[in-house]
Amino acid sequence: MKSGATLWWDAGLPGIRYIDQTLLPEEYKIVDCRTVQRLATAIRRLEIRGAPALGVAGAFGVALAASACTNKDPSAFVASVKKDAELLRATRPTAVNLGWGIDRVLARLTGCRDTDTARADSLSEAQTIAKEDTLCCHAIGDHGAALLPSRCTVLTHCNAGALACSSWGTALGVIRSAVNFGKDVRVIACETRPLLQGARLTAWELAHDGIDVTVITDSTAAHLMRTGTIDAVIVGADRITRDAVFNKIGTYMHAVCARYHGIPFYVAAPLSTFDATRTEQEVTIEERNRDELAVMGNSTLIPDGVPVKNFAFDATPMELVTAIITERGVFRHPIDIEALLSTGVTQTTIDPHSS
Amino acid sequence: MKSGATLWWDAGLPGIRYIDQTLLPEEYKIVDCRTVQRLATAIRRLEIRGAPALGVAGAFGVALAASACTNKDPSAFVASVKKDAELLRATRPTAVNLGWGIDRVLARLTGCRDTDTARADSLSEAQTIAKEDTLCCHAIGDHGAALLPSRCTVLTHCNAGALACSSWGTALGVIRSAVNFGKDVRVIACETRPLLQGARLTAWELAHDGIDVTVITDSTAAHLMRTGTIDAVIVGADRITRDAVFNKIGTYMHAVCARYHGIPFYVAAPLSTFDATRTEQEVTIEERNRDELAVMGNSTLIPDGVPVKNFAFDATPMELVTAIITERGVFRHPIDIEALLSTGVTQTTIDPHSS
Repeated sequence: MKSGATLWWDAGLPGIRYIDQTLLPEEYKIVDCRTVQRLATAIRRLEIRGAPALGVAGAFGVALAASACTNKDPSAFVASVKKDAELLRATRPTAVNLGWGIDRVLARLTGCRDTDTARADSLSEAQTIAKEDTLCCHAIGDHGAALLPSRCTVLTHCNAGALACSSWGTALGVIRSAVNFGKDVRVIACETRPLLQGARLTAWELAHDGIDVTVITDSTAAHLMRTGTIDAVIVGADRITRDAVFNKIGTYMHAVCARYHGIPFYVAAPLSTFDATRTEQEVTIEERNRDELAVMGNSTLIPDGVPVKNFAFDATPMELVTAIITERGVFRHPIDIEALLSTGVTQTTIDPHSS
Repeated sequence: MKSGATLWWDAGLPGIRYIDQTLLPEEYKIVDCRTVQRLATAIRRLEIRGAPALGVAGAFGVALAASACTNKDPSAFVASVKKDAELLRATRPTAVNLGWGIDRVLARLTGCRDTDTARADSLSEAQTIAKEDTLCCHAIGDHGAALLPSRCTVLTHCNAGALACSSWGTALGVIRSAVNFGKDVRVIACETRPLLQGARLTAWELAHDGIDVTVITDSTAAHLMRTGTIDAVIVGADRITRDAVFNKIGTYMHAVCARYHGIPFYVAAPLSTFDATRTEQEVTIEERNRDELAVMGNSTLIPDGVPVKNFAFDATPMELVTAIITERGVFRHPIDIEALLSTGVTQTTIDPHSS
């Protein structure tokens, strides 16, 4: 798994194969997915999760819809694929990459002269997106690694790792690159309630790579910051608007506590995560079901009838972000998202081998 | 359970009966405890927990040791009871009330002229401690209720309720008193990982009393503070030194976030929780075992071999505390613990019916 993919196209099915992330760390299982409906279920159930991985899944999902559609009439073909694409898009409302991956393949497909070409081109575009995502994560990792001291303890939340991307990871990509460059990095992984992606996935990935990782409850982070254990916080992102970073619930709490303790708070994310057309107020935060908090295996954790609020994400205002690490470089506070995206120029260029 | 006891002396056993808090909310079970060894196990396993309840348990534990000791020689009798008392004292290193309850009964017992009197007096002293605790919680509740607006949402962490005390509760006592005075109080209960006392116990207690309660993951608190949902934070305490409040891990995070958002942060605790002889640095924070984080029922949540840090408590420096609510009244920031304890004068007297 060192830089292995979390999902990929299998021409033999034909369809998508992926690691079922709901079963880790107890079981490592590869799922064969032959239909868009099954893929939608996989995304909704978080068998596939993580913003960049959702972009790749959306892209392969459109390719899968095209592959499965036998209609020879180009406009009926496109209408059918678009219908499937909308099914996929509706599975998760907050992550922007999902729609981004879907739209990129749809755009390629709608311009095609016949359905065979459309099928081939949509798969080719999805493959390109997956390859770009891997290159992108390595670039993010290499840029971000320069921000870390040669010996440090980094706190991360949820899983912004290889499992959340094509490979390598964003926040964990920074850590992997730093380790590759010879830095001595110890990781504190917040378990990340309610679905425990930190305990289950981040710990699994890093331990698998031989990187020193310790798991804590989410609410232990501030205590470790106060006792001087944490040198930096690095998280991923599900959507970055002009004014805020949307990421797993709990991210905002870490940002507030990091600011209070004078600890840098970094967000590692590809440009495909940016949504400069919107502000925080225009984004819907997904609320997930009660059972994610109330039930664990056969145990009832909350008395019957007591309600929960189960937000999947929160928003961290840009003023709490020390820097955003992208494939184009490191963008430090104060961060102007529109300028960043419109100029396309690397704001800060850092040689990752220099520190 | 409205103001029912969480543990009490049963002359028929003779011994202690208590609600096993590890089984709630799935099962309401009363345990018969006839030996000090069983009581020590109950405290270690958190069948009995909560700072004031531990004080009462320590007191009844010494009475139980005295009741069980058949030695007629007064000095051998005292030595035997003291040995049992030290077994109890060693079960939880951070909560100060446990040792306080033990020492109060030991002091009463060591002055007695014969072992029969010692037995009777130690039980009488333990009963007095339990009664005082109930009165104390009501006084705390009534003083603290005045701090809450007539319509408000209060965030609490862990369980500082009737289950954590003889009855009524400290933090939840404030909420119960406010509701009794006709205030419209909605409670947000943080689930409180790893052992979920908020989800399991606070939600159970409040729902049982018909008080509006919603459960969130611990890391959702800051998000709700930012969106304007929370009017006040009220927590209990396991030990209050001159410079810091020790309470369930996660309390410090809430205090930092409350300060950042300008939300009052209240600590509700009896004077028996105060330890003015020590500073934060002199207190050991209990670390509990890996399985509390790594295992839930039959599920493995963390890959084998990955370590955890499982602190039971954290320390919140006094400067983040808006006020401490005690049975003597409300002590507002800046709080001088030594003066508070030495003068014995109520710093702020509030008529709980006035607001």
